[in-house]
Amino acid sequence: MIRSAFFEPNKPIKFFKTTKEISDYLDSKTGFLWVSLEAATDEEMLLILRDTFKFHPLTIEDCQSAGYQVAKVDDFISYIFIIAHAIKPAQDFHQLDTLELNLYVGENFLVTCSTDPHMLPVEKTWERVNKDFRLSNFGPDFLCHAVLDNLVDEYMPLIDQMENEIEWLEDSVLEKPSPATLERLLDLKHSIMSLRRVIAPQREMVNRLTRDEFTQIDPQSRYYFRDIYDHLVRIQDLADTLRDIVSGAMDIYLNSTSLRLNEVMKVLTIISTIFLPLSFIAGVFGMNFKYIPTSTHSLGFYFTVFGMIVVGVGMLWYFKWRKWF
Amino acid sequence: MIRSAFFEPNKPIKFFKTTKEISDYLDSKTGFLWVSLEAATDEEMLLILRDTFKFHPLTIEDCQSAGYQVAKVDDFISYIFIIAHAIKPAQDFHQLDTLELNLYVGENFLVTCSTDPHMLPVEKTWERVNKDFRLSNFGPDFLCHAVLDNLVDEYMPLIDQMENEIEWLEDSVLEKPSPATLERLLDLKHSIMSLRRVIAPQREMVNRLTRDEFTQIDPQSRYYFRDIYDHLVRIQDLADTLRDIVSGAMDIYLNSTSLRLNEVMKVLTIISTIFLPLSFIAGVFGMNFKYIPTSTHSLGFYFTVFGMIVVGVGMLWYFKWRKWF
Amino acid sequence: MIRSAFFEPNKPIKFFKTTKEISDYLDSKTGFLWVSLEAATDEEMLLILRDTFKFHPLTIEDCQSAGYQVAKVDDFISYIFIIAHAIKPAQDFHQLDTLELNLYVGENFLVTCSTDPHMLPVEKTWERVNKDFRLSNFGPDFLCHAVLDNLVDEYMPLIDQMENEIEWLEDSVLEKPSPATLERLLDLKHSIMSLRRVIAPQREMVNRLTRDEFTQIDPQSRYYFRDIYDHLVRIQDLADTLRDIVSGAMDIYLNSTSLRLNEVMKVLTIISTIFLPLSFIAGVFGMNFKYIPTSTHSLGFYFTVFGMIVVGVGMLWYFKWRKWF
Amino acid sequence: MIRSAFFEPNKPIKFFKTTKEISDYLDSKTGFLWVSLEAATDEEMLLILRDTFKFHPLTIEDCQSAGYQVAKVDDFISYIFIIAHAIKPAQDFHQLDTLELNLYVGENFLVTCSTDPHMLPVEKTWERVNKDFRLSNFGPDFLCHAVLDNLVDEYMPLIDQMENEIEWLEDSVLEKPSPATLERLLDLKHSIMSLRRVIAPQREMVNRLTRDEFTQIDPQSRYYFRDIYDHLVRIQDLADTLRDIVSGAMDIYLNSTSLRLNEVMKVLTIISTIFLPLSFIAGVFGMNFKYIPTSTHSLGFYFTVFGMIVVGVGMLWYFKWRKWF
Amino acid sequence: MIRSAFFEPNKPIKFFKTTKEISDYLDSKTGFLWVSLEAATDEEMLLILRDTFKFHPLTIEDCQSAGYQVAKVDDFISYIFIIAHAIKPAQDFHQLDTLELNLYVGENFLVTCSTDPHMLPVEKTWERVNKDFRLSNFGPDFLCHAVLDNLVDEYMPLIDQMENEIEWLEDSVLEKPSPATLERLLDLKHSIMSLRRVIAPQREMVNRLTRDEFTQIDPQSRYYFRDIYDHLVRIQDLADTLRDIVSGAMDIYLNSTSLRLNEVMKVLTIISTIFLPLSFIAGVFGMNFKYIPTSTHSLGFYFTVFGMIVVGVGMLWYFKWRKWF
Repeated sequence: MIRSAFFEPNKPIKFFKTTKEISDYLDSKTGFLWVSLEAATDEEMLLILRDTFKFHPLTIEDCQSAGYQVAKVDDFISYIFIIAHAIKPAQDFHQLDTLELNLYVGENFLVTCSTDPHMLPVEKTWERVNKDFRLSNFGPDFLCHAVLDNLVDEYMPLIDQMENEIEWLEDSVLEKPSPATLERLLDLKHSIMSLRRVIAPQREMVNRLTRDEFTQIDPQSRYYFRDIYDHLVRIQDLADTLRDIVSGAMDIYLNSTSLRLNEVMKVLTIISTIFLPLSFIAGVFGMNFKYIPTSTHSLGFYFTVFGMIVVGVGMLWYFKWRKWF
Repeated sequence: MIRSAFFEPNKPIKFFKTTKEISDYLDSKTGFLWVSLEAATDEEMLLILRDTFKFHPLTIEDCQSAGYQVAKVDDFISYIFIIAHAIKPAQDFHQLDTLELNLYVGENFLVTCSTDPHMLPVEKTWERVNKDFRLSNFGPDFLCHAVLDNLVDEYMPLIDQMENEIEWLEDSVLEKPSPATLERLLDLKHSIMSLRRVIAPQREMVNRLTRDEFTQIDPQSRYYFRDIYDHLVRIQDLADTLRDIVSGAMDIYLNSTSLRLNEVMKVLTIISTIFLPLSFIAGVFGMNFKYIPTSTHSLGFYFTVFGMIVVGVGMLWYFKWRKWF
Repeated sequence: MIRSAFFEPNKPIKFFKTTKEISDYLDSKTGFLWVSLEAATDEEMLLILRDTFKFHPLTIEDCQSAGYQVAKVDDFISYIFIIAHAIKPAQDFHQLDTLELNLYVGENFLVTCSTDPHMLPVEKTWERVNKDFRLSNFGPDFLCHAVLDNLVDEYMPLIDQMENEIEWLEDSVLEKPSPATLERLLDLKHSIMSLRRVIAPQREMVNRLTRDEFTQIDPQSRYYFRDIYDHLVRIQDLADTLRDIVSGAMDIYLNSTSLRLNEVMKVLTIISTIFLPLSFIAGVFGMNFKYIPTSTHSLGFYFTVFGMIVVGVGMLWYFKWRKWF
Repeated sequence: MIRSAFFEPNKPIKFFKTTKEISDYLDSKTGFLWVSLEAATDEEMLLILRDTFKFHPLTIEDCQSAGYQVAKVDDFISYIFIIAHAIKPAQDFHQLDTLELNLYVGENFLVTCSTDPHMLPVEKTWERVNKDFRLSNFGPDFLCHAVLDNLVDEYMPLIDQMENEIEWLEDSVLEKPSPATLERLLDLKHSIMSLRRVIAPQREMVNRLTRDEFTQIDPQSRYYFRDIYDHLVRIQDLADTLRDIVSGAMDIYLNSTSLRLNEVMKVLTIISTIFLPLSFIAGVFGMNFKYIPTSTHSLGFYFTVFGMIVVGVGMLWYFKWRKWF
Repeated sequence: MIRSAFFEPNKPIKFFKTTKEISDYLDSKTGFLWVSLEAATDEEMLLILRDTFKFHPLTIEDCQSAGYQVAKVDDFISYIFIIAHAIKPAQDFHQLDTLELNLYVGENFLVTCSTDPHMLPVEKTWERVNKDFRLSNFGPDFLCHAVLDNLVDEYMPLIDQMENEIEWLEDSVLEKPSPATLERLLDLKHSIMSLRRVIAPQREMVNRLTRDEFTQIDPQSRYYFRDIYDHLVRIQDLADTLRDIVSGAMDIYLNSTSLRLNEVMKVLTIISTIFLPLSFIAGVFGMNFKYIPTSTHSLGFYFTVFGMIVVGVGMLWYFKWRKWF
């Protein structure tokens, strides 16, 4: 699908119905174009990117490629080319999926391109285009900022979801640790590490937009990109905090395993230490000697059993004193 | 609440009662304004920040936002915008809470803004404003330094508190290690890591104030910001030391767990090694054979029991010799 | 083997049959040479590199040396000398083998040199030379890019292979962990670390080609080297991800070992805790006293055995209640 | 205590008796002053630092403060202010104590200031002042170098002491590991980490003295500061080596714990594996059946006991074959 | 011992017999001197270094000092002073010993100085001086390169030796792990870490020789120093690889310890789980009741023993089914 429009300050936005109209406004000095390709066919892509805008073939390859490309910004003198990664909306965050968004920012145009039909940051910006006068008045760099801002904002719910899961797992580790908990913790740690690897190059990319002297970025707009940069720093910070908590929970888990081993061993030791000596006494009096002291006494059995009870209780009392349980 | 005043070198400070008076002194060349918004309503904020001082909308968003923002300093040519984090005074440091303080420093004004009604660093500076002549004479950059200095000073008691807790936990780990101790240690480690994440960007922010060529910061004032910077370096240093001690205590804890397992196992082994052979001997003489040697001898029982004692004591002596206990 | 050809924009490529023809085109301003030495003899190397092109003796030593040299780019004013590493095509990636490729890029020549007879990136480029007009028209820097691009592309299947192996090992760790699994994991981790060490200097080398002002590299070609650089960054990223997963799998493995120890200990403890007291009771009634209560009662045996069953079942019920199994 | 003197090249040193004489030489162009405050009272400090030399109030605060300040060098245009840390001479290095030394270096003066009455580096320099002509001839920067050189030299014995202790602990870990050894190792590791934190900023401080363009430091003197810098690099290197050895010793310790657990378990297992089956055989023949095979045979007992011995020795032989002991 | 010679391009080398001849060639513009002090006495050192060449006293101290000095290069305007570290040839690499080599490189002289009588890199260069025309023609910087090249080449056999030892240890860890293996691994790891600490500053030193604008180093010679730099990078790379393998071997070792604990525990558990119930059954029938079922039956004993065998075999079958052995 291709959506396109022409924006002029303080004038109504012209939405195009066909892609042919785009060419008429390519050289306009008074306004700027926004063309967004969403899950466009290869022919459409080549028509717009190669034939209409004459972008560098390497960037077109990047747009068409299905593989993961690291986020970056490249300067092609007359325009800049940006790769960013949106979060794929999913029920579950155990598999962190990202969608690639490609943006071309020129003096008087913004071209966004994605192989996914539901690129939310782009859709949200289209919806706000009529409501927020800044989007149509401030130029393609501000529009690009709006798209990236929406894209970054979608990372926060993911972090929140992870935080909840971690809290739940922390409790579970303390109450009833199971191998499944450890697996979930490792999964989560892995997701957090992936998130950091997705965020770090985007942070660097936005940092270059605020710092480098791209002629396409108005100095005024830099404050806005700086705002996105601060968001990304914050997300990376949160990811680091989560990773620490997960590591702590894993430490508790591993310790609890060895604690329960200790507990089990104590029970075994106490039982053995009480009954092995007692069984030995019983064995002694079970020997088949003719003359066993007290064996013929009428209360001999009771005396012996009483002695055994004394030994057993003494043992228990000793363990209590040693604070074994 | 909004507090505001006008400072002129060597003149009494003019405290304003209404916010309308602020506008009259906005363009003063002889003195400078301090306006502090403490838990102000949104209308008050917009009135002061947007309408009176005409600050950038992004900074006003930052002031109003309840979420955590990373500490930073942004240069808006005619003023600089600072985000800093004060420690929330709490009985307990297990949950490290911070309060955001926003500062605008211009040529002739300082605006401080916080969503918390009790921002101690600001309150303390207001209290000293009449006592310390430097605050009213040295310009808004020195006033900003005074606020940040108070803010940083509040971190030291927290570090001290943590240090005490750690010492207590170290002793507890050596005397009677319990899972609760491990949890406390992990909590503490987590707090220390959070503290480092709060301190690090503030350190960088203050470093930029001492280094970058902000026209709002007088070269003379840099020594004072450098002083705050040294404090923050020191706090980070202490946090690193604490983290090392906590890690050491955790190592001792985990080792003590396995040491006690060893101890328990030894008891079990000694008991088994003594009584299993003895019980076996008793079992042998308990077999129902007609002809068992010495079984009809009148002292057979005593001989056998004596032999058992010899075996048992020999075992004990052997363990003593192997230094098992 | 020595292959060589002369390329001129928009003209058919002249393939040379003997190495003597090379000298005639050395000073051509209109086109450029490509000479590729594949497993050439020492005499051939000296003839081409030393006598024909007069390259620096240190670079010739590098070309002839069989040892591993770290990837790099060196500027010799009139040409640049590049060392890169191709993956040795192998059935198995447990031993990560690399082949060294040396490239000289001058104003009007490209010399590639390898001690291996099957340097695939070079062969693939020779095959495409007639099909892709860019290779013969864009100069030696683009040709150099084509060779390096093929070289880097060969790393991806290796990463994929590793990814598959890791997934398989992860499952194996969860289902039936064995010491062999741990060894495979350590092997894999080791291969990944080696891969990172091979990739990192190549990344830096390509980065210098995009950044430094080498006169041999046309500014237009930098976009292409930047594309290779992005690939290498991506490969390093993937290697980091794989390393994290391997570490996680090793954690699960080690934990599973201690979990099974726990399980075994529990069985031992349950058996001991049930049968030691029961054997003791049996021992008590096996003592040779004349007067043992109920021993002469006709149902005494049944009462006692019933009592034992009650004790045993009670123990089992207790363990069930404590959730030991 | 305040010591002061005036140095002129090739002239005898003038030692002052009262602090009043200092002022007379403040503006001397031909020589330079050294004033050293050792455990001076607050009044003396203010008299010298504030009233005589008119130093910046922040530096005077630093001199008076009892707390730990990170080592640094600050440039105040007409003088530089240095904070360094000397080792507190102690019998024991388990508690690493440092003493702060403050130095002001101006064109024609050196002021050293410490709150401790026995600042050895300063005392040693005073003692050498008459013997080493370079101290009185080469200016205040060389004198400052001499003090810092003495200060750094005092770290080496500490490192040596630590090295000895570590060697002793390494042996102790191999021969008779005890929890006390682990605690000592952790203590030592902690001391080494503290040492690194004390050394690192001093290294950076001295590095700035050799690198930055301080007008108070003669280019010739930089070689000498570079010498101190090399010493500090060496100390940090040694500290890293020690930390590695301590970590290795801790690894051996922890492994030895689990090795002894293994050994204990083996003894238990061997004893149980031999005597449990034997006791079972004895139990079988102890059953009260009327007809037990061989029970009435006159050698039945001997046959059975012989069989038991065969089983027991067979077990032992099996364990030997499995190399269990 | 002092060896010295005068080199002039395309002329025979003049070897000096006495140190007096050196002074005559100090100011020669046509050739250059090489003076090498090998285990020279203090008087000889002072004569050459202080009186003849008038080097800076700090560098002479460095030459005379027996302690370890970190590798570095210092610029003294008219000459540069280099500290490098050669490997001490030893049978065993468990104690990594280095020999310090000091080099002074001036416009027309090279002075090498070492406290060891057998500094191999210097001796090897003296031997090649007559064979390799480049050594006498290319100036003192090339000669310095030749010495450093020999010095660095001696590290490779050490790395190879370590690699062999590690391979041997890896096998030993898998076949019969013993505490001695762990100690060797830790020793080796420690040697590798020491090696890295010796190599890292030398790499930095050589890097400065290729990069900084030392007037004593001809731009042409930089390629040669760059070659040494590449060697050092490679050695550091190899050291990193070895460290990883050692760490992996230690992981396998520690895991094998806990695996064998598991194995031992299983044997104990199987034996106990089989014989404890059987002994209990024997105990039950050993009770002294008058009326024990089947006790008077002529096949009672056989029935009971058969029942016991069924129980025992059932247990074994159960363990087999659970895959315990």
